[in-house]
This record gives sequence, structure tokens and C-alpha cells, in this order.
Amino acid sequence: MSDIRPTTPSGTDLDPWLDTYALRAFGLSASEVRALFAVASRPEVVSLAGGMPYVRAIPRELVAGAFDRMLLADAPAALQYGSGQGLPRLREHILTVMAEEGITASVDDVVTTTGSQQAIDLVTKLFIDPGDVILAEGPSYVGALGVFKSFQAVTVHLRMDADGLVPEVLEAAIRDQRSAGKRIKFLYTIPNFHNPAGVTLSAERRPRIVDICRREGVLIVEDNPYGLLWFDAPPPPPLHVLNPEGVVYLGSFSKTFAPGFRVGWAVAPHAVREKLVLAAESAILSPSSFNHHLISEYLESVDWRAQVAVFRDVYRERRDAMLRALEEHLPRLSWNVPNGGFYVWVRLPEELHSKQMLPRAVRELVAYTPGTGFYADGQGGRELRLSFCYPTPEFIEEGIRRLASVIDGELELVRAFAGTGSLAPRQDDGAMAAPPPDLN
Amino acid sequence: MSDIRPTTPSGTDLDPWLDTYALRAFGLSASEVRALFAVASRPEVVSLAGGMPYVRAIPRELVAGAFDRMLLADAPAALQYGSGQGLPRLREHILTVMAEEGITASVDDVVTTTGSQQAIDLVTKLFIDPGDVILAEGPSYVGALGVFKSFQAVTVHLRMDADGLVPEVLEAAIRDQRSAGKRIKFLYTIPNFHNPAGVTLSAERRPRIVDICRREGVLIVEDNPYGLLWFDAPPPPPLHVLNPEGVVYLGSFSKTFAPGFRVGWAVAPHAVREKLVLAAESAILSPSSFNHHLISEYLESVDWRAQVAVFRDVYRERRDAMLRALEEHLPRLSWNVPNGGFYVWVRLPEELHSKQMLPRAVRELVAYTPGTGFYADGQGGRELRLSFCYPTPEFIEEGIRRLASVIDGELELVRAFAGTGSLAPRQDDGAMAAPPPDLN
Repeated sequence: MSDIRPTTPSGTDLDPWLDTYALRAFGLSASEVRALFAVASRPEVVSLAGGMPYVRAIPRELVAGAFDRMLLADAPAALQYGSGQGLPRLREHILTVMAEEGITASVDDVVTTTGSQQAIDLVTKLFIDPGDVILAEGPSYVGALGVFKSFQAVTVHLRMDADGLVPEVLEAAIRDQRSAGKRIKFLYTIPNFHNPAGVTLSAERRPRIVDICRREGVLIVEDNPYGLLWFDAPPPPPLHVLNPEGVVYLGSFSKTFAPGFRVGWAVAPHAVREKLVLAAESAILSPSSFNHHLISEYLESVDWRAQVAVFRDVYRERRDAMLRALEEHLPRLSWNVPNGGFYVWVRLPEELHSKQMLPRAVRELVAYTPGTGFYADGQGGRELRLSFCYPTPEFIEEGIRRLASVIDGELELVRAFAGTGSLAPRQDDGAMAAPPPDLN
Repeated sequence: MSDIRPTTPSGTDLDPWLDTYALRAFGLSASEVRALFAVASRPEVVSLAGGMPYVRAIPRELVAGAFDRMLLADAPAALQYGSGQGLPRLREHILTVMAEEGITASVDDVVTTTGSQQAIDLVTKLFIDPGDVILAEGPSYVGALGVFKSFQAVTVHLRMDADGLVPEVLEAAIRDQRSAGKRIKFLYTIPNFHNPAGVTLSAERRPRIVDICRREGVLIVEDNPYGLLWFDAPPPPPLHVLNPEGVVYLGSFSKTFAPGFRVGWAVAPHAVREKLVLAAESAILSPSSFNHHLISEYLESVDWRAQVAVFRDVYRERRDAMLRALEEHLPRLSWNVPNGGFYVWVRLPEELHSKQMLPRAVRELVAYTPGTGFYADGQGGRELRLSFCYPTPEFIEEGIRRLASVIDGELELVRAFAGTGSLAPRQDDGAMAAPPPDLN
């Protein structure tokens, strides 16, 4: 095993430690999303790329009030090391937050993490030996794919449609992977307002997905950062509700409060939870007591449900602005209609490539995320992700206008070189044969 | 590889996912230090066990002032996701903190981490394939040993004496391991006020250790959380100063400010640093912007050097109290005399076992950490660690008085059963043949 390391990792030939790295280190590479941060932060660029929540919607007095009460009541504990599993008081509040979505659990079942990203990292560390298979929607969350790769997992993508993950596709993948002698470790899924696909797993499919996994002995890792951010009606209850013993559920305060605290959590079956706590302690000893006390004070003293409702209103307005602008400026393209969350997933004309088009977009002062980052296998060139969470409706409209001009310009260029004719409008039938997931 | 998993991991036979875990998950076990937290938190117990800094020495107005300024100036950024490498402004301040110990580096060289524990985790993830060797002092930091085990490393302990790690022992270990066909990935060392051994690597030995590692191509991971907490004179300059290209240096705000923020850092050679940033992003996306902004404000607006001097005075007084009490109540035992940091390392009479004695100690309302937790291989039964960082001098004296009574009681019991005579005072010659490290 130690002799098959690739010769061209992301580092340089001048690295004197090149022969020293673990094999898994060669799976670490800069994500396309992260690389965009530098570009998107220039003020003249309308960024539809990042997934930054609109934290300006949080009145700073609320944070200040929570801080003042915390300092008065709990300063020494807030400055000190804490429990590796997380402050029990905060874990109590997490139960209340999860109850909004129908989850029943006990304080002992909850493990807090440094954002739910760390929960993905710890679950993967706990379950993945090199070569093991993880099933995940295609496209899937770029941060999860990076973790999977860094632990030398093989990610097998599962197709979605307008109702989310397709149960028959899941069944077939399990059968195929096992026939090929592969060990499947878990299904990683984002049932609500999928990142990046925007779709939501239908109520009808949820028990079917859970039953397949139960029958086949496949653990489900259910990532649900956006569940409370619905626009029209709440999504169906989480998969965890249907089989708590078969699901590791991941939640986060990053979207309902603020990501700057880096507080997320996992709820897991008893034996898995025990190991998650040990893995968390090994990784960071204990989470930030300061942030745990502060968030606890916030949840106790602020009407946090009203604040979540404010976020809903903000994001709904922005989604509407984005959909309106797409209809106006890019009517021939297809995209999903998300009922919550942060993202619209767009399919490009087949002559275009989202990654190759990006430099031109940035020149024309609009940024998006190419679809290629959301697949483990290089797919996604004809897709892109647009975020409506951060820019104002006016900027969103301007951004889409610029994007339309970029796309028109690229198409002209391609056709001039190829001598092709006009592009026929695409018709999608809602039961398409390939990613991306559903469209409208 | 997948068929050699042990049959008795820390979980239960009832765990339905038992066949699903990665091999490395079987290396996760609860550390003895963490298990003591529950015991030590009972108010009637004098705990000489944990390593909690005395955060009550920080005036809470200082934290409040930093918070107020941060909220006024930087609230949106503090609540938002940040750079994976850490806030540049904080990394600038980290350079100033490290300059106190003689380190010169650039802002780009610094990667912030969730406490320096996470830096240990990321470095290990980056370099360790299963079976690889890590060299570490014996005894060594329990949190590092846990990480090494969780990545399936083999830890080889190196003997210390009163001047710290013995260069000849390092040379011999490199030779022996390589003769045995093992791949050595790095030397993990705590040169200043060692945890748990209390010793400091002498100025004379530092270039020798660095030269051996340079010559042999062994990376050094230098863990230095206590360097600024010296009592009599500053320690010699860090190993990093002697060969920045061969050392990953780890620092932390946990002991000089407060652990509740979970902010530490690594300074690494360029190519290693690049990979550390990717590994950090994979693990947690980005560190807590909130805590980075807050610590930056604190460092800018508070005389933090004066605050570190306050900590020095507090801990010096407590060390003195502990040494006085040991001399008075346990004169026949031997121990090191730390010139900084948090710990005294004690050798027990050979009839006793520190882990077996602990329940009796807890019954008599004193807690310590058995030496066994600080070795990867079950050594340490005749050693124990006493912490003087948290209890007041009065409690330290009372704790040692109780410990003496526990030891006397245990010795009586052992002798009553064994029919042995009196215990001759132990003489140590400062160049002893086995751990623990230096004595007095």
C-alpha cells in the first residue's frame, strides 16, 4: 500500500516531506467552492456562489444581551474546558430545536460538533476504511465529498428527480456495489432543500428509503441544516423519526442562528454516539464552552423561533427574486424550484461547460459555483449552483442579468466556432434519466 | 485487513453497527484523564487531576470590553463563516505572541486550529498510515497518544531525564525502528514544562535533537502550550527557531488566555502548511470567526503580557505550595521540580500501583491522574501526575496531606499482606535507566 502513492499531489516537487505523507493526504484538494471565496469577496462582483447565511438579519442587541447575561452568570465556566459531548444545557435546547421538526431524543443522544461539518468528518473517520463505499446523492454537498475523499472512501452517486432521491436507484446501487464485492458503509443524504440540488425528498419516499436501508443494513447519515428554513410549508418529518436506530442525524445552528460560532450536532444510535464522543474528544478535546454558553443564553432569552421566521422571509423573498430573474433573463434554461434553503440548481445548454465558463463570468462581475465540485467523479460540467441566501433581491436580479449575458456570449462564441444553428428550448419531463435533479 | 478487527471494542455486543466500523474506530477509548472529570467535579474532592487553567484570574471586564468593541466594529464578520486558515488579523497577533519566545514566521505560515488538540489531530491525519511509527517522550500527553492510536499509529516512547529527552535515546530509537523495517513519521515532543513529566529540554540538547532529526529526515512536531508560563526564567528558544523547515510548531491560547474559546495554531513548513489548511477545512470548514475576532480585540486592547505575568505568579505560588507539601508529607517519594507549566510527576513506592490506588484516593477525597494514561503501552503504574494549576495553595496542601494518608494506608495494607519490612528511602541519581523523567 505504501508504494502506490500518486506522484502529483496538490503540493510541490520541492516539498521535502513528500515521501512522508499518509496515503489519505493525497486525497486532500482545494474545493472549487473555497477557491471562489477570494473572487466573490470583491465588492463589484455579484456573488451567487457562496453559501453564507445573511447574518445581518440578526439584531446585534440580541447577541449582546445573551453575552451580558452569560458573563454575569457563567463567566468562569464559559472560559474553561467543557464536556467533550457538549454543554448539557445546550444539548437540552437542541432537543427543543429538533422537536420543531418532530424529532424525539434524549440529552444523552446528542453530541455537539464544530459545525455539522465536523460531524461528517467524525462519522467518516469512524466508519470508513480505505476503499469502502459511501452512497450519496449526485450532486451532493461539496464539503462532505471532500471528507469522504480524505478518508479514501469511494463515493457512489445516486440519481434524484423532483421528489429527491429515487428509491429504485438506491436499491440498485446497493445490489450492484455488493455484487462487485464492495463494502457499503452508509448513505449520506440531505432530504430537505438539498445542497446543491434544491429538491426535497417527498413524504411518500421517506419510509421507502428508510425501509430499504433497514432491510439492507445500511446506516443513514441524514444531514439537515436547512430543515427549519422552509418557505411555503414545512418539509415532511426527518428520516430519523422513522428509524432512530438506523439514522445518524446532523443538525446545525449555522443557518438558524449564525455560522461564526461553529456549533452543530449529531444524534446517533447509542453505540455509535458513544464512539462519536470519543472521536470528538480525540479531535478537539472539548467544544467551545464560550459559544455553548452564549448560544444557550440566546435560545433562552430571545424569541429564536421569530428570528428563524425572519430568516424564512428574507430567503423566500430572495428565492422569488432569483426565480423571477431566471424566467425573465434565461427562459430557455431549466432549473429546480426550491421550497426552502439556499440554492437553485441550473442546467446549462449542452454546448456550455460551467467550469470553463466561470472565468468569463467573473470578468463580467458575477460568480456562481460550477456543478463539477458537487460530484466525486468529474460530472457536473453542464450544471451550476446559484445561491440566493446572501445578496439582496436587487443584486440577485443584477447577477442573473449578468449571467444571462455571459451565457449568451458563450453560446455565440461556441456557435461561431462550431457553425451550429439555434438552440432549441429544452423540455424536461420530471422523470429524467440523468442528473441533475429535477427541474422546472 | 478487514478481517482482523478485534472482537471487544469499547462498544457493546448489542451494537448492530459493530461490523460496520472502520478498523481505526477500535483504537478509540475513553482516556483515564477524561473519566476523572466526573469524579473531580464533586466539590468535596480536592482534584489534583485535571489540567484546567485558573481562568478566574482573568478579570471579566477585560473579556466584556473586547466583546463590546468587537460587536461595534465587526459583528457581521464575527457571526459569519471565515477563512479556513483563520482570521488574518488574529494570525498577525499570533506572530507577536510567538515572537515572545523567539519565533519568526509570516502570517501565511500560521494555521489556526480548534485548540492545539486539533493541530495534533490534523498532523496525524496527514502523516500516519496504519502501522507507521511516531516517536514521543515517555510519558507523553494523553490527548496526543489518543489521536495517534485513533489513526493506527505505533507510538514508540523515548526516555527523558532531568534535562528532558535524551538525544542518544532518540538516535537509538530511529536506528532500531528502521532496522525493524518501520516507517518513522515524526517525533512528537513537548520541550517546555512537559505534560506530564514537568521537565524542560535543556539548551544544550535542543540543537542536538534538531540535528539528529534533520540528519535522519524525521519531522519534529513541537507542542508548546506552556512556554510563556515559566516561573523563574524563560525556557530556551523553541526547536522551531533552530530549523523552521523541519518543525511543525503548535501553540495555543488555552493556557495564556482561556481554553473556552478553543483557539490554537500550527506553524509549519510551506508545503505541510498548505495541506494542513486543506485538512482543517475538511474537518470544520472554518474556525469560529466569533472567537477569532474576540481574541483579536482582547490582544489589541488588553495588556495581555501583564495578564500572562499574573498567571505566572498564580501558578508559581501553587507549584511552591505543592512542592512544600510533598516535602512535608511525602518526603520519601521522589518527584520532578517543574520550572513552569502545570504538573509535578511523582514516583510511588514500588509496592503501589497508581491506577489501583485511585479508588481509595477518591474515597479519601483527593484525585490525581495515574501514570498509566501517559504511556501507549501500559507502563506508568508506579507514577502519577499531580496538577497544581487549578486548586488554591490551601487546597493543594490539603490534597497532598490526603494523598499522603492514602499512600500510607495502602503501604500498610500491602505490607500487612506481604509481611515485608519498612520501605527504604529511594535515592535517584539523575541519570536513571527508566522513566519517569527526572526526579529530585
